[in-house]
Amino acid sequence: MFISFEGIDGSGKSTQARRLAQTLAARATEVVLTREPGGSEGAEEIRRLLVEGRGERWSPETELLLFTAARRDHVERLIRPARARGAWVITDRFADSTRVYQGLVRADLRQLVEELHRLTIGIEPDLTFIIDIDPEVSLTRGQARGGPEDRFETFGLTFQKKLREGFLTLAAEAPERIRVIDGSGSEDEVATRVLAALT
Amino acid sequence: MFISFEGIDGSGKSTQARRLAQTLAARATEVVLTREPGGSEGAEEIRRLLVEGRGERWSPETELLLFTAARRDHVERLIRPARARGAWVITDRFADSTRVYQGLVRADLRQLVEELHRLTIGIEPDLTFIIDIDPEVSLTRGQARGGPEDRFETFGLTFQKKLREGFLTLAAEAPERIRVIDGSGSEDEVATRVLAALT
Repeated sequence: MFISFEGIDGSGKSTQARRLAQTLAARATEVVLTREPGGSEGAEEIRRLLVEGRGERWSPETELLLFTAARRDHVERLIRPARARGAWVITDRFADSTRVYQGLVRADLRQLVEELHRLTIGIEPDLTFIIDIDPEVSLTRGQARGGPEDRFETFGLTFQKKLREGFLTLAAEAPERIRVIDGSGSEDEVATRVLAALT
Repeated sequence: MFISFEGIDGSGKSTQARRLAQTLAARATEVVLTREPGGSEGAEEIRRLLVEGRGERWSPETELLLFTAARRDHVERLIRPARARGAWVITDRFADSTRVYQGLVRADLRQLVEELHRLTIGIEPDLTFIIDIDPEVSLTRGQARGGPEDRFETFGLTFQKKLREGFLTLAAEAPERIRVIDGSGSEDEVATRVLAALT
Protein backbone atom coordinates (compact mmCIF):
# COMPACT_ATOMS: atom_id res chain seq x y z
CA MET A 1 0.00 0.00 0.00
CA PHE A 2 1.10 3.53 -0.84
CA ILE A 3 -0.68 6.12 1.31
CA SER A 4 -0.40 9.90 1.24
CA PHE A 5 -1.50 12.47 3.81
CA GLU A 6 -2.50 15.86 2.47
CA GLY A 7 -3.82 19.10 3.87
CA ILE A 8 -3.02 22.74 4.42
CA ASP A 9 -0.01 23.92 6.44
CA GLY A 10 -0.49 23.12 10.15
CA SER A 11 -3.40 20.73 9.56
CA GLY A 12 -1.78 17.98 11.64
CA LYS A 13 -1.14 15.69 8.65
CA SER A 14 2.54 15.11 9.54
CA THR A 15 1.57 13.98 13.02
CA GLN A 16 -1.14 11.70 11.65
CA ALA A 17 1.22 10.22 9.03
CA ARG A 18 3.70 9.39 11.80
CA ARG A 19 1.01 7.90 14.04
CA LEU A 20 -0.33 5.67 11.27
CA ALA A 21 3.21 4.52 10.47
CA GLN A 22 3.73 3.59 14.14
CA THR A 23 0.44 1.73 14.32
CA LEU A 24 1.21 -0.27 11.17
CA ALA A 25 4.82 -0.97 12.19
CA ALA A 26 3.53 -2.44 15.47
CA ARG A 27 1.63 -4.95 13.31
CA ALA A 28 4.96 -6.19 11.89
CA THR A 29 4.62 -4.62 8.47
CA GLU A 30 7.68 -2.80 7.06
CA VAL A 31 6.59 0.82 6.89
CA VAL A 32 8.54 3.62 5.19
CA LEU A 33 7.49 7.03 6.48
CA THR A 34 8.54 9.85 4.18
CA ARG A 35 7.62 13.38 3.15
CA GLU A 36 7.54 15.87 0.30
CA PRO A 37 9.14 17.94 -0.89
CA GLY A 38 12.08 15.73 0.03
CA GLY A 39 12.21 12.14 1.19
CA SER A 40 15.40 11.23 -0.65
CA GLU A 41 18.86 12.79 -0.43
CA GLY A 42 18.58 14.83 -3.64
CA ALA A 43 14.96 15.79 -3.09
CA GLU A 44 15.79 17.14 0.38
CA GLU A 45 18.35 19.45 -1.26
CA ILE A 46 15.70 20.69 -3.68
CA ARG A 47 13.33 21.10 -0.69
CA ARG A 48 15.57 23.78 0.79
CA LEU A 49 15.18 25.84 -2.40
CA LEU A 50 11.39 25.51 -2.17
CA VAL A 51 10.40 25.98 1.45
CA GLU A 52 12.85 28.65 2.58
CA GLY A 53 13.24 32.25 1.48
CA ARG A 54 10.93 34.92 0.12
CA GLY A 55 7.50 34.11 -1.27
CA GLU A 56 8.32 35.59 -4.67
CA ARG A 57 11.62 33.72 -4.85
CA TRP A 58 10.24 31.50 -7.65
CA SER A 59 7.47 31.98 -10.17
CA PRO A 60 4.69 29.37 -9.99
CA GLU A 61 6.05 27.66 -13.13
CA THR A 62 9.63 27.38 -11.85
CA GLU A 63 8.33 26.22 -8.48
CA LEU A 64 6.25 23.54 -10.21
CA LEU A 65 9.31 22.27 -12.11
CA LEU A 66 11.33 22.10 -8.89
CA PHE A 67 8.58 20.20 -7.05
CA THR A 68 8.37 17.78 -9.98
CA ALA A 69 12.16 17.27 -9.99
CA ALA A 70 12.10 16.55 -6.24
CA ARG A 71 9.19 14.13 -6.67
CA ARG A 72 10.90 12.28 -9.51
CA ASP A 73 13.98 11.75 -7.31
CA HIS A 74 11.81 10.69 -4.35
CA VAL A 75 9.84 8.18 -6.43
CA GLU A 76 12.94 6.68 -8.11
CA ARG A 77 15.18 6.42 -5.09
CA LEU A 78 12.80 5.77 -2.20
CA ILE A 79 9.17 5.03 -3.08
CA ARG A 80 9.64 2.55 -5.96
CA PRO A 81 12.37 0.50 -4.21
CA ALA A 82 10.30 0.35 -0.99
CA ARG A 83 7.19 -0.81 -2.83
CA ALA A 84 9.22 -3.35 -4.81
CA ARG A 85 10.28 -5.08 -1.58
CA GLY A 86 6.71 -5.06 -0.28
CA ALA A 87 6.93 -2.24 2.26
CA TRP A 88 4.05 0.10 3.00
CA VAL A 89 4.91 3.69 2.07
CA ILE A 90 3.31 6.56 3.96
CA THR A 91 4.15 10.01 2.67
CA ASP A 92 3.44 13.41 4.18
CA ARG A 93 2.32 15.13 0.93
CA PHE A 94 2.53 13.90 -2.67
CA ALA A 95 1.20 15.07 -6.04
CA ASP A 96 -2.13 16.36 -4.66
CA SER A 97 -0.23 19.14 -2.88
CA THR A 98 1.17 20.25 -6.22
CA ARG A 99 -2.28 20.06 -7.82
CA VAL A 100 -3.63 22.35 -5.10
CA TYR A 101 -0.70 24.69 -4.34
CA GLN A 102 0.44 25.27 -7.91
CA GLY A 103 -2.47 23.99 -9.96
CA LEU A 104 -5.51 25.52 -8.35
CA VAL A 105 -4.33 28.49 -6.41
CA ARG A 106 -1.29 30.11 -8.01
CA ALA A 107 -1.83 31.04 -11.65
CA ASP A 108 -3.82 28.83 -13.96
CA LEU A 109 -1.40 25.92 -13.95
CA ARG A 110 -3.58 22.90 -13.29
CA GLN A 111 -3.20 21.55 -16.82
CA LEU A 112 0.59 22.00 -16.73
CA VAL A 113 0.68 20.22 -13.35
CA GLU A 114 -1.15 17.24 -14.87
CA GLU A 115 1.02 17.14 -17.99
CA LEU A 116 4.26 17.19 -15.99
CA HIS A 117 2.86 14.51 -13.68
CA ARG A 118 1.95 12.29 -16.63
CA LEU A 119 5.30 12.82 -18.37
CA THR A 120 7.64 12.36 -15.41
CA ILE A 121 5.88 10.82 -12.37
CA GLY A 122 2.98 8.63 -13.45
CA ILE A 123 2.08 6.98 -10.13
CA GLU A 124 -0.66 7.82 -7.60
CA PRO A 125 -1.11 6.68 -4.00
CA ASP A 126 -3.54 3.81 -3.43
CA LEU A 127 -5.19 5.89 -0.72
CA THR A 128 -5.01 9.55 0.29
CA PHE A 129 -6.14 11.13 3.54
CA ILE A 130 -6.88 14.84 3.51
CA ILE A 131 -6.75 16.17 7.07
CA ASP A 132 -9.31 18.95 6.93
CA ILE A 133 -9.12 21.87 9.32
CA ASP A 134 -10.14 25.51 9.72
CA PRO A 135 -7.31 27.63 8.20
CA GLU A 136 -7.51 30.13 11.07
CA VAL A 137 -6.55 27.34 13.46
CA SER A 138 -3.89 25.74 11.25
CA LEU A 139 -2.10 28.97 10.37
CA THR A 140 -1.67 29.73 14.06
CA ARG A 141 -0.14 26.28 14.57
CA GLY A 142 2.26 26.76 11.66
CA GLN A 143 3.39 30.14 12.87
CA ALA A 144 3.85 28.81 16.39
CA ARG A 145 6.19 26.13 15.01
CA GLY A 146 8.63 28.77 13.74
CA GLY A 147 11.82 27.86 11.91
CA PRO A 148 13.00 28.79 8.41
CA GLU A 149 10.45 26.66 6.53
CA ASP A 150 7.70 29.25 6.47
CA ARG A 151 7.75 30.35 2.83
CA PHE A 152 4.23 29.14 2.05
CA GLU A 153 2.83 30.35 5.37
CA THR A 154 3.92 33.90 4.48
CA PHE A 155 1.21 33.91 1.80
CA GLY A 156 -1.34 34.34 4.60
CA LEU A 157 -4.87 33.35 5.58
CA THR A 158 -6.65 34.01 2.27
CA PHE A 159 -4.15 31.73 0.55
CA GLN A 160 -4.69 28.97 3.15
CA LYS A 161 -8.47 29.25 2.68
CA LYS A 162 -8.06 28.77 -1.07
CA LEU A 163 -5.83 25.78 -0.42
CA ARG A 164 -8.49 24.19 1.77
CA GLU A 165 -11.10 24.69 -0.94
CA GLY A 166 -8.65 23.19 -3.44
CA PHE A 167 -8.14 20.04 -1.40
CA LEU A 168 -11.90 19.56 -0.93
CA THR A 169 -12.46 20.02 -4.68
CA LEU A 170 -9.82 17.39 -5.40
CA ALA A 171 -11.46 14.97 -2.95
CA ALA A 172 -14.76 15.39 -4.78
CA GLU A 173 -13.02 14.65 -8.10
CA ALA A 174 -11.38 11.41 -6.90
CA PRO A 175 -13.69 9.90 -4.23
CA GLU A 176 -12.40 6.35 -4.87
CA ARG A 177 -8.89 7.34 -3.75
CA ILE A 178 -9.29 10.30 -1.37
CA ARG A 179 -10.84 10.28 2.13
CA VAL A 180 -11.47 13.60 3.88
CA ILE A 181 -10.77 13.30 7.63
CA ASP A 182 -12.10 15.83 10.14
CA GLY A 183 -8.91 17.30 11.64
CA SER A 184 -10.53 18.98 14.65
CA GLY A 185 -10.16 17.66 18.19
CA SER A 186 -7.22 15.88 19.81
CA GLU A 187 -4.46 13.95 18.02
CA ASP A 188 -5.97 10.72 19.37
CA GLU A 189 -9.41 11.56 18.04
CA VAL A 190 -8.07 12.31 14.56
CA ALA A 191 -5.88 9.16 14.59
CA THR A 192 -8.96 7.08 15.43
CA ARG A 193 -10.80 8.61 12.46
CA VAL A 194 -7.86 7.78 10.15
CA LEU A 195 -7.74 4.16 11.29
CA ALA A 196 -11.50 3.79 10.91
CA ALA A 197 -11.27 5.12 7.35
CA LEU A 198 -8.39 2.74 6.56
CA THR A 199 -10.23 -0.37 7.77
CA MET B 1 19.14 39.55 -31.04
CA PHE B 2 19.32 36.52 -28.75
CA ILE B 3 22.47 34.46 -29.41
CA SER B 4 23.58 31.22 -27.78
CA PHE B 5 26.98 29.55 -27.77
CA GLU B 6 27.01 25.78 -27.54
CA GLY B 7 29.59 23.02 -27.57
CA ILE B 8 31.17 20.31 -25.48
CA ASP B 9 32.94 20.99 -22.18
CA GLY B 10 36.21 22.86 -22.79
CA SER B 11 35.34 23.81 -26.38
CA GLY B 12 36.12 27.48 -25.79
CA LYS B 13 32.48 28.62 -26.11
CA SER B 14 32.53 30.63 -22.86
CA THR B 15 35.58 32.56 -24.06
CA GLN B 16 33.97 33.19 -27.45
CA ALA B 17 30.67 34.29 -25.88
CA ARG B 18 32.58 36.81 -23.75
CA ARG B 19 34.60 38.07 -26.72
CA LEU B 20 31.52 38.57 -28.87
CA ALA B 21 29.84 40.44 -26.01
CA GLN B 22 32.86 42.75 -25.72
CA THR B 23 32.95 43.38 -29.47
CA LEU B 24 29.25 44.23 -29.59
CA ALA B 25 29.38 46.37 -26.43
CA ALA B 26 32.14 48.43 -28.06
CA ARG B 27 29.63 49.25 -30.81
CA ALA B 28 27.37 50.88 -28.18
CA THR B 29 24.76 48.16 -28.07
CA GLU B 30 23.53 47.05 -24.63
CA VAL B 31 24.75 43.48 -24.34
CA VAL B 32 23.77 41.06 -21.57
CA LEU B 33 26.26 38.19 -21.27
CA THR B 34 24.86 35.24 -19.36
CA ARG B 35 25.21 31.48 -18.98
CA GLU B 36 23.36 28.24 -18.25
CA PRO B 37 22.68 26.51 -16.06
CA GLY B 38 22.34 29.73 -14.09
CA GLY B 39 22.22 33.33 -15.24
CA SER B 40 19.69 34.49 -12.64
CA GLU B 41 19.84 34.33 -8.86
CA GLY B 42 17.57 31.30 -8.49
CA ALA B 43 18.98 29.48 -11.49
CA GLU B 44 22.51 29.83 -10.11
CA GLU B 45 21.33 28.06 -6.95
CA ILE B 46 19.91 25.24 -9.07
CA ARG B 47 23.21 25.20 -11.01
CA ARG B 48 25.10 24.11 -7.92
CA LEU B 49 22.87 21.04 -7.63
CA LEU B 50 23.58 20.17 -11.27
CA VAL B 51 27.28 20.73 -11.89
CA GLU B 52 28.79 19.62 -8.60
CA GLY B 53 28.88 16.19 -6.97
CA ARG B 54 28.86 12.63 -8.22
CA GLY B 55 27.85 11.70 -11.76
CA GLU B 56 25.04 9.44 -10.58
CA ARG B 57 23.73 12.08 -8.20
CA TRP B 58 20.61 12.57 -10.37
CA SER B 59 18.86 10.35 -12.87
CA PRO B 60 18.63 11.78 -16.40
CA GLU B 61 14.93 12.59 -15.86
CA THR B 62 15.46 14.47 -12.58
CA GLU B 63 18.43 16.28 -14.10
CA LEU B 64 16.28 17.31 -17.05
CA LEU B 65 13.60 18.72 -14.73
CA LEU B 66 16.22 20.70 -12.80
CA PHE B 67 17.75 22.12 -15.98
CA THR B 68 14.27 23.10 -17.16
CA ALA B 69 13.48 24.79 -13.81
CA ALA B 70 16.75 26.75 -14.00
CA ARG B 71 16.03 27.77 -17.61
CA ARG B 72 12.51 28.91 -16.76
CA ASP B 73 13.87 31.17 -14.02
CA HIS B 74 16.65 32.46 -16.31
CA VAL B 75 14.21 33.27 -19.13
CA GLU B 76 11.67 34.97 -16.84
CA ARG B 77 14.03 37.01 -14.75
CA LEU B 78 16.90 37.86 -17.09
CA ILE B 79 16.42 37.01 -20.78
CA ARG B 80 12.86 38.28 -21.33
CA PRO B 81 13.37 41.59 -19.47
CA ALA B 82 16.65 42.22 -21.34
CA ARG B 83 15.06 41.55 -24.72
CA ALA B 84 12.08 43.71 -23.82
CA ARG B 85 14.34 46.74 -23.33
CA GLY B 86 16.14 46.05 -26.62
CA ALA B 87 19.39 44.57 -25.30
CA TRP B 88 21.31 41.85 -27.12
CA VAL B 89 21.46 38.69 -25.05
CA ILE B 90 24.42 36.33 -25.43
CA THR B 91 24.22 33.11 -23.45
CA ASP B 92 26.85 30.47 -22.83
CA ARG B 93 24.55 27.42 -23.37
CA PHE B 94 20.76 27.26 -23.74
CA ALA B 95 18.21 24.57 -24.68
CA ASP B 96 20.46 22.87 -27.26
CA SER B 97 22.73 21.71 -24.44
CA THR B 98 19.75 19.97 -22.85
CA ARG B 99 18.75 18.44 -26.18
CA VAL B 100 22.25 16.99 -26.53
CA TYR B 101 23.25 16.18 -22.94
CA GLN B 102 19.95 14.74 -21.78
CA GLY B 103 18.09 14.18 -25.02
CA LEU B 104 20.58 12.42 -27.25
CA VAL B 105 23.16 10.93 -24.99
CA ARG B 106 21.69 9.90 -21.66
CA ALA B 107 18.71 7.59 -21.96
CA ASP B 108 16.13 8.06 -24.65
CA LEU B 109 14.81 11.38 -23.46
CA ARG B 110 14.79 13.56 -26.56
CA GLN B 111 10.99 13.58 -26.82
CA LEU B 112 10.62 14.45 -23.13
CA VAL B 113 13.18 17.26 -23.57
CA GLU B 114 11.10 18.72 -26.41
CA GLU B 115 7.80 18.37 -24.51
CA LEU B 116 9.16 20.12 -21.42
CA HIS B 117 10.65 22.85 -23.60
CA ARG B 118 7.33 23.40 -25.36
CA LEU B 119 5.35 23.39 -22.11
CA THR B 120 7.57 25.64 -20.00
CA ILE B 121 10.19 27.52 -22.07
CA GLY B 122 8.94 28.08 -25.61
CA ILE B 123 11.63 30.46 -26.92
CA GLU B 124 14.71 29.75 -29.08
CA PRO B 125 17.76 31.91 -29.78
CA ASP B 126 17.74 33.84 -33.06
CA LEU B 127 21.22 32.46 -33.76
CA THR B 128 23.31 29.69 -32.22
CA PHE B 129 27.06 29.13 -32.61
CA ILE B 130 28.36 25.63 -31.96
CA ILE B 131 32.09 25.80 -31.24
CA ASP B 132 33.26 22.48 -32.64
CA ILE B 133 36.42 20.86 -31.30
CA ASP B 134 38.14 17.47 -30.93
CA PRO B 135 36.95 16.02 -27.58
CA GLU B 136 40.48 14.80 -26.78
CA VAL B 137 41.64 18.43 -26.80
CA SER B 138 38.63 19.87 -24.97
CA LEU B 139 38.58 17.32 -22.18
CA THR B 140 42.21 18.13 -21.37
CA ARG B 141 41.29 21.82 -21.17
CA GLY B 142 38.34 21.12 -18.87
CA GLN B 143 40.40 18.97 -16.52
CA ALA B 144 43.19 21.55 -16.47
CA ARG B 145 40.64 24.15 -15.32
CA GLY B 146 39.91 22.18 -12.11
CA GLY B 147 37.39 23.36 -9.53
CA PRO B 148 34.26 21.67 -8.22
CA GLU B 149 32.22 22.01 -11.43
CA ASP B 150 33.46 18.82 -13.07
CA ARG B 151 30.42 16.57 -12.74
CA PHE B 152 29.86 16.20 -16.50
CA GLU B 153 33.58 15.89 -17.24
CA THR B 154 33.74 12.83 -14.99
CA PHE B 155 31.66 10.98 -17.59
CA GLY B 156 34.85 10.78 -19.74
CA LEU B 157 35.99 10.85 -23.36
CA THR B 158 33.42 8.50 -24.89
CA PHE B 159 30.66 10.68 -23.44
CA GLN B 160 32.26 13.85 -24.84
CA LYS B 161 32.54 12.22 -28.28
CA LYS B 162 28.81 11.39 -28.20
CA LEU B 163 28.08 14.99 -27.18
CA ARG B 164 30.03 16.30 -30.14
CA GLU B 165 28.10 14.05 -32.50
CA GLY B 166 24.89 15.23 -30.85
CA PHE B 167 25.68 18.90 -31.43
CA LEU B 168 26.57 18.27 -35.09
CA THR B 169 23.31 16.31 -35.58
CA LEU B 170 21.37 19.21 -34.09
CA ALA B 171 23.12 21.68 -36.42
CA ALA B 172 22.10 19.57 -39.40
CA GLU B 173 18.48 19.59 -38.16
CA ALA B 174 18.27 23.40 -37.74
CA PRO B 175 20.63 24.92 -40.36
CA GLU B 176 18.66 28.20 -40.45
CA ARG B 177 19.47 28.89 -36.77
CA ILE B 178 22.71 27.04 -36.02
CA ARG B 179 26.21 27.83 -37.33
CA VAL B 180 29.04 25.37 -36.65
CA ILE B 181 32.32 27.19 -35.99
CA ASP B 182 35.71 25.46 -36.24
CA GLY B 183 37.06 25.76 -32.68
CA SER B 184 40.68 24.86 -33.49
CA GLY B 185 43.48 27.41 -33.48
CA SER B 186 43.93 30.51 -31.33
CA GLU B 187 41.19 32.45 -29.51
CA ASP B 188 41.64 35.27 -32.04
CA GLU B 189 41.21 32.94 -34.99
CA VAL B 190 38.00 31.46 -33.58
CA ALA B 191 36.66 34.94 -32.68
CA THR B 192 37.27 36.06 -36.27
CA ARG B 193 35.28 33.06 -37.55
CA VAL B 194 32.39 33.89 -35.19
CA LEU B 195 32.25 37.52 -36.34
CA ALA B 196 32.39 36.47 -39.98
CA ALA B 197 29.46 34.09 -39.42
CA LEU B 198 27.49 36.84 -37.63
CA THR B 199 27.88 39.39 -40.40
